[in-house]
Amino acid sequence: MLKTHLNAVIDKKPRIHCITNIVSANLTANGLIACGASPIMAQDPEEVYEICTACDGLSLNLGTPNPRKIEAMLIAGRTANELGRPVVLDPVAVGASKFRMRSAQKLLESIEFSAIRGNISEIKSLAVGTTNTYGVDAEDFDENSLDDIVYLARRFSQKTKAVVAVSAAVDVVTDGKDAYIIKNGTKMLSKVTGSGCMLTAISTAYIVANPENPLMAMVSSLCALGVCGERAEKNSVGNGSFAVNLLDEISNLQGETLSLEAKYELF
Amino acid sequence: MLKTHLNAVIDKKPRIHCITNIVSANLTANGLIACGASPIMAQDPEEVYEICTACDGLSLNLGTPNPRKIEAMLIAGRTANELGRPVVLDPVAVGASKFRMRSAQKLLESIEFSAIRGNISEIKSLAVGTTNTYGVDAEDFDENSLDDIVYLARRFSQKTKAVVAVSAAVDVVTDGKDAYIIKNGTKMLSKVTGSGCMLTAISTAYIVANPENPLMAMVSSLCALGVCGERAEKNSVGNGSFAVNLLDEISNLQGETLSLEAKYELF
Amino acid sequence: MLKTHLNAVIDKKPRIHCITNIVSANLTANGLIACGASPIMAQDPEEVYEICTACDGLSLNLGTPNPRKIEAMLIAGRTANELGRPVVLDPVAVGASKFRMRSAQKLLESIEFSAIRGNISEIKSLAVGTTNTYGVDAEDFDENSLDDIVYLARRFSQKTKAVVAVSAAVDVVTDGKDAYIIKNGTKMLSKVTGSGCMLTAISTAYIVANPENPLMAMVSSLCALGVCGERAEKNSVGNGSFAVNLLDEISNLQGETLSLEAKYELF
Repeated sequence: MLKTHLNAVIDKKPRIHCITNIVSANLTANGLIACGASPIMAQDPEEVYEICTACDGLSLNLGTPNPRKIEAMLIAGRTANELGRPVVLDPVAVGASKFRMRSAQKLLESIEFSAIRGNISEIKSLAVGTTNTYGVDAEDFDENSLDDIVYLARRFSQKTKAVVAVSAAVDVVTDGKDAYIIKNGTKMLSKVTGSGCMLTAISTAYIVANPENPLMAMVSSLCALGVCGERAEKNSVGNGSFAVNLLDEISNLQGETLSLEAKYELF
Repeated sequence: MLKTHLNAVIDKKPRIHCITNIVSANLTANGLIACGASPIMAQDPEEVYEICTACDGLSLNLGTPNPRKIEAMLIAGRTANELGRPVVLDPVAVGASKFRMRSAQKLLESIEFSAIRGNISEIKSLAVGTTNTYGVDAEDFDENSLDDIVYLARRFSQKTKAVVAVSAAVDVVTDGKDAYIIKNGTKMLSKVTGSGCMLTAISTAYIVANPENPLMAMVSSLCALGVCGERAEKNSVGNGSFAVNLLDEISNLQGETLSLEAKYELF
Repeated sequence: MLKTHLNAVIDKKPRIHCITNIVSANLTANGLIACGASPIMAQDPEEVYEICTACDGLSLNLGTPNPRKIEAMLIAGRTANELGRPVVLDPVAVGASKFRMRSAQKLLESIEFSAIRGNISEIKSLAVGTTNTYGVDAEDFDENSLDDIVYLARRFSQKTKAVVAVSAAVDVVTDGKDAYIIKNGTKMLSKVTGSGCMLTAISTAYIVANPENPLMAMVSSLCALGVCGERAEKNSVGNGSFAVNLLDEISNLQGETLSLEAKYELF
């Protein structure tokens, strides 16, 4: 199945509209190209309606936000929703400012997301919000407890109706019912700025190319990046060479390799 | 001649003012340094007049546009025109939105360009525009027909009085009279985001350093990047290593190598 | 001592808030991660107060400036000052426009900087300003004279009460009293766009992690980047591979190596 998902991206070459940040725009675009997709970056309210209309999916990233870019995200997100195209959210550092939190909440209210992907603290911040509507007590929550992470992710998925993916020591992906855990990856991924942003964009491509199963498309994309990270690490001596090798591994990842090396299981 | 053009860039070290995009700003600056030029990135209306005045040439790139940046491009372009310094346009994805098309048309009306470089779909979009003033029927136009590409480029060059360069399977460069075709390059160049943006900036440096012949300076720069791409590909296994090797090859390209490996001919 | 400074960064993992530019944001973030620090990029007035409050230090970079970003710098700088956290300024190309100069002067009036780092022409422009308040005659100033550079840097440090670091053939660091010169580094550093921006951010991390001695923390960070540059150059064939190797060297730099290979002395 993972192999099928990977090949669907290569075959369909989905065009992904990214509204992203100044730090990782380059890596994100190259990562999309490497996995077989086609990126277009555009972030001004003047043009995102048309850009989004011409694309197969939309990836929204909360890094280096400003009010004008959030406005563009709202326009693009509503457009993609009207056209029935997947929208994926990466709530970068959403807990770091009220502006990010407020923006993310507005996006969640205004746009139907196919998926939301972030690290554990981002997903926790977003799920709990400022009003703590979940009954999840942030102080009782243990980031090292897989049970706690799965519980949080599942509840958040049920509320948002989006597939929720949490990057942590062990990744969690859930559609509110089933939950998968993924044991691929390496700590080196956290040493490359924007590797999470790139992953979210790649996940968007996987979901677009595999519309019949967004849950497993997300699982496949996380396994793919994890496997590429593991392979890239072997020839890397720092975060400079690791970033380069990571793109090379994404460029060359075969479906067979992904199927063989993926470590995922139903929770 | 190509050798002379390359060495003129190294000798004169032209300072190129770039107004570009968040995706490729880094690669563009490093590409300019690698070929011997000196980049300065500045894109706010508050300062582009002065920045442009202190530079030898101007490279305008339509990626991730916004109204304020377009305003800066107009100021900088008029300044460069008044000072008699070359201005080169890269109409990135100009067909993707009315805002880009409108902005590009305003730039073309307000600024005299020494050269315009884009891929075939960008040049076609820009040449045909929304009003189809050329009598070139976009639907009859065959992107795989070299005759059609040369015809389009020549007509567009005659109208704009700019050297027009079209990146395609075979590149075309024309000043409205003579047309050259260039057979260097590799598909890998299209796998690195912003390689076209970088090329346009490098072309600006070549035109600045070789003011007596913008047509052949453009031919030389396209051959140079094509040769570097071919050489870089040999040691690359994906778009990560290719981007690194491409900058290395640009850093080391010798005039002799360029003359030997360039494949260009009068059409 | 250098070893202690380097290890303090690794041990304390300081979180550095960077307000920087579209060209070097990626390299700067990866450089901070490589040296053991943790970057957060945020540049909108809507959120910089909170972001800055959550960080251990602030790095302000004048590249690709615009009025809104300068406003954000003022808010963040004052916030950091109130909280007693180090602020470091990189006056990128400050002499290139009145807007940059005016902005830099406003930053200097409004914010107490722990350190200012730039190349010789930037520091000279900033020190002399438009009003030439120093009695340093810019025309008499010899950029190749170490005496002149030290004199300028010391005077500027006395005026600003900041440690001043000047990157030149030989680097100079002074707190207005003592002055150190540093002979590490390679010309290749100037071939990678944004390597200076990255250095300033890394210097911020060193100063944050070693609050008892900002002068020597700055010396250590300049030695560290110089040593990494020298080591990176050995395996590099152009600015592509050099940038990658530089990040790798920063990732792996050991305190012992730094102590052994650093070349600094009291002037």
